[in-house]
Amino acid sequence: MRRAVVLLSGGMDSATTLAEAIAQGFEAHALTVRYGQRHEVELERAAAVAHAVGAASHRLASVDLAFAGGSALTDPSIPVPKSREDETIGAGIPATYVPARNTVLLSLALAWAEALGARDLFIGANAVDYSGYPDCRPAFLEAFEALAGVATKAGVEGESFRVHAPLMRLTKGEIVRRALELRVDLSLTWSCYDPAPGKVPCGRCDACLLRARGFRDAGIEDPALRARP
Amino acid sequence: MRRAVVLLSGGMDSATTLAEAIAQGFEAHALTVRYGQRHEVELERAAAVAHAVGAASHRLASVDLAFAGGSALTDPSIPVPKSREDETIGAGIPATYVPARNTVLLSLALAWAEALGARDLFIGANAVDYSGYPDCRPAFLEAFEALAGVATKAGVEGESFRVHAPLMRLTKGEIVRRALELRVDLSLTWSCYDPAPGKVPCGRCDACLLRARGFRDAGIEDPALRARP
Repeated sequence: MRRAVVLLSGGMDSATTLAEAIAQGFEAHALTVRYGQRHEVELERAAAVAHAVGAASHRLASVDLAFAGGSALTDPSIPVPKSREDETIGAGIPATYVPARNTVLLSLALAWAEALGARDLFIGANAVDYSGYPDCRPAFLEAFEALAGVATKAGVEGESFRVHAPLMRLTKGEIVRRALELRVDLSLTWSCYDPAPGKVPCGRCDACLLRARGFRDAGIEDPALRARP
Repeated sequence: MRRAVVLLSGGMDSATTLAEAIAQGFEAHALTVRYGQRHEVELERAAAVAHAVGAASHRLASVDLAFAGGSALTDPSIPVPKSREDETIGAGIPATYVPARNTVLLSLALAWAEALGARDLFIGANAVDYSGYPDCRPAFLEAFEALAGVATKAGVEGESFRVHAPLMRLTKGEIVRRALELRVDLSLTWSCYDPAPGKVPCGRCDACLLRARGFRDAGIEDPALRARP
């Protein structure tokens, strides 16, 4: 059985990506990264998701991205933008962009893949984020595959790595429907960038708005809201 | 004055690389990474080197690479190889290879570069390590430059990044001579992968042997040995 490393944040997209990797026949090893995000609640959700979806193993790695600054997600002095209309999402690169975050996350996935003998990496990048975050674009993932081929012992030995982004071309509504087809329990997932005290989603950051749009488009109620009224 | 981020380990090569960046006219910001290496002593040396050589600033970032395993440098259960003859150095990829280490280090440098507005990264990769570590080769650095161009906000805006490895084609002896030309105090630097108690270099790991070869070829006594007999 081929092994894969799947980046798992605890959100809806990466949970669905983990289920996709398993559905494609991979022995899926889930990697969650604590990088100094203010929404640390996603880390505990990731553990629940890894177990429920059926990861072969789950590890937590830590990296301090707050040291570099420059992002609302890691610097408490920069506010997380709140929109009243989600039409503004995708206009430019948002303040929640963390410099080089996906490069760092994929590098850590690559390190574990080398140690595990895996040649496949999965990431939940998708076309909606694509409009805002440079490191969610297909060109980024292709450049990372090329890098992995020369950065590693396996690459020197002639093997190649593949970065899978099975949600890349799906809308948020299609992701919700695909998650349900794959029997992912979305009530376990967490999306909000800026939780209120008591771990309540703010409902107004880009991540909350995109999640709400997904459920609305799929015509389904968000079970996470039902579970925690 | 153009800013650059310089990866600084506390070793001879990265100290010389920092001096090169400054000599080339950059405002050099030094980044040291705690990644779970067993030779943590290099971290305190890095701070001394950054100050002595003249970095504009110095930061320490932390990343847990021990989580992935697979290397003698981060896993205490894997012994650091000891050679009696340094002729064997370069035959295959050594046990001290840390999976994807330079990919992770350059990713962190890239994150800081984005926040600082720097477009230049410096790394002390060189041709001697090149024979053993895949992620010290020119092809790796070129692939990282290509990745940086698509991974970042600056890249999307049409700017490009450059990864400088000014020691790439130098022998260890030439690095020692270049360090002295640039007035780098090599007594501050640390190379050993596997220090004995009391922070004494082991003298027999690849890093110690390569360092000794460099001073021998340059016809100079290692001031670090003289300072700490």
